[in-house]
Amino acid sequence: MTTFRFTKGQATGNDFVLVADPEGTAPLSPTQIAALCDRHFGVGADGLIRAVRSEHLPEGAAALAEDPDATWFMDYANGDGSVSEMCGNGVRAYVRFLVDTGLATLGVGETIAIGTRAGVKRVERSEDGFRVDMGRWALRGGEPLVSAHGLEVDRPGLGIDVGNPHVVVALSSNTELEALDLARPPVLDPAPPAGANVEFVVPAEPLVSGGIGRIRMRVSERGVGETLSCGTGAVAAALAVRHWAGAGAPDRWRVGVPGGVVEVAVAGAPGEERVTLAGPAELVFDGNLELPSPVTAG
Amino acid sequence: MTTFRFTKGQATGNDFVLVADPEGTAPLSPTQIAALCDRHFGVGADGLIRAVRSEHLPEGAAALAEDPDATWFMDYANGDGSVSEMCGNGVRAYVRFLVDTGLATLGVGETIAIGTRAGVKRVERSEDGFRVDMGRWALRGGEPLVSAHGLEVDRPGLGIDVGNPHVVVALSSNTELEALDLARPPVLDPAPPAGANVEFVVPAEPLVSGGIGRIRMRVSERGVGETLSCGTGAVAAALAVRHWAGAGAPDRWRVGVPGGVVEVAVAGAPGEERVTLAGPAELVFDGNLELPSPVTAG
Repeated sequence: MTTFRFTKGQATGNDFVLVADPEGTAPLSPTQIAALCDRHFGVGADGLIRAVRSEHLPEGAAALAEDPDATWFMDYANGDGSVSEMCGNGVRAYVRFLVDTGLATLGVGETIAIGTRAGVKRVERSEDGFRVDMGRWALRGGEPLVSAHGLEVDRPGLGIDVGNPHVVVALSSNTELEALDLARPPVLDPAPPAGANVEFVVPAEPLVSGGIGRIRMRVSERGVGETLSCGTGAVAAALAVRHWAGAGAPDRWRVGVPGGVVEVAVAGAPGEERVTLAGPAELVFDGNLELPSPVTAG
Repeated sequence: MTTFRFTKGQATGNDFVLVADPEGTAPLSPTQIAALCDRHFGVGADGLIRAVRSEHLPEGAAALAEDPDATWFMDYANGDGSVSEMCGNGVRAYVRFLVDTGLATLGVGETIAIGTRAGVKRVERSEDGFRVDMGRWALRGGEPLVSAHGLEVDRPGLGIDVGNPHVVVALSSNTELEALDLARPPVLDPAPPAGANVEFVVPAEPLVSGGIGRIRMRVSERGVGETLSCGTGAVAAALAVRHWAGAGAPDRWRVGVPGGVVEVAVAGAPGEERVTLAGPAELVFDGNLELPSPVTAG
């Protein structure tokens, strides 16, 4: 039996088991991760994040080569134990964990470089949360027709790539958004080869207030179903509405998701644009349990 | 800020936040309970159980009057913060908590009396779990017709009262059981005035082995939806199949639920029969968090 000490954290309702393993000596097997993330028999979480110093992981070497300041690596796994590259909400929870446990120091307005399997991510601490540079984006994936339970007529979606594929669908009212039954996944025609997350968005009235665009969104993540928040989904939703709004549309967007509010911002010259995602992240509780078997190299 | 120390436990997948408050000085408000039981923003659980000495609670006085040995009271609340009388799986997790934390001593084969809002419950420790005396039962609630998504034809159910109302429906095969879509609740005709939990059962092949009846079950709990396990539902399912099997049917039944296996046993003279529910219960982890507001009288 090994005592496993962890912290539970959440970022707009996406929740994570966070564990400090600076020397990288306590990897977890996919079976152990799935058991820990089980919501009834384990701790319960969307994913597990291990904080390891980049120098102690093979993937960390690539991060340090890209940016010597990326001394911390986010070793992220999905709740089913599969390895994942990045998570826009998870990286906020991760930095909150590093800061609140004293593993890293980060003042408001300062930026930390975090190694991930999708490259180094820069995270700025703000007054009330963290802002993550999500990198480049592209209109890609066409305009498939989207059908969903509770949606009276099929509607065209807009394909957007934010590192992973999304299809964004505009709805006309909050009533229509709330009537959606996302217990079953939406169907795309034509279906993208690797699938896509599907975001349904409704503009606020007015769409732009104080120079900031405002939308509400629900999301169905491929292979997962509806979630309280999807970081890259919020980014895709804001970019789609900004695209539809045309010239003069704002560069800052507030996106209401079921788990809270995040902010998406676009910066840079046309063709060189980068997008950032900002939002809250909190640690919820500390815990410990006895792992049934010795930690094995995973 | 108040540091809140708790233990998470589960019994066949029904999961609970367990907290020791022997002197009854730290009641939780319904809002606090709902926040703690939230699966994304809190700890996550089906319910919260506070361990209080009966002498320190008004409801505990009634328990002590019924049985002076009922020195511990199970102060149980549902995940939404509403007060609940009893939970067949919860009481196993509660006794596991009392025993493993040293609040009570209970050897294998010994019985402890637990005060609950549904009267004093007697719980016996077995080799691999706990057996709870669930009291009397009755055929009651008629034979409504049951329709459910994934069920090709409507089927008659059997109404059984085990302290709360159940309707049990026999299916012909595991294939039919697995095809059920319980994301939406089954519909009963006529609808019982207070609703009912609905259990779908399939007999094993053979139904009786070694003198023990064997069934599989899925359950849709009223107001909740499908759950991994429902203690009273397993009892109702076993009693219904025993009723259908007629004279000579066994008094012991092994019930496979999505969260594990429980055992139901009937004892006593006809008309005086009592039923017990046995199964495992485990503590999963210990945790602590800062409650955002002082604990208030709830």
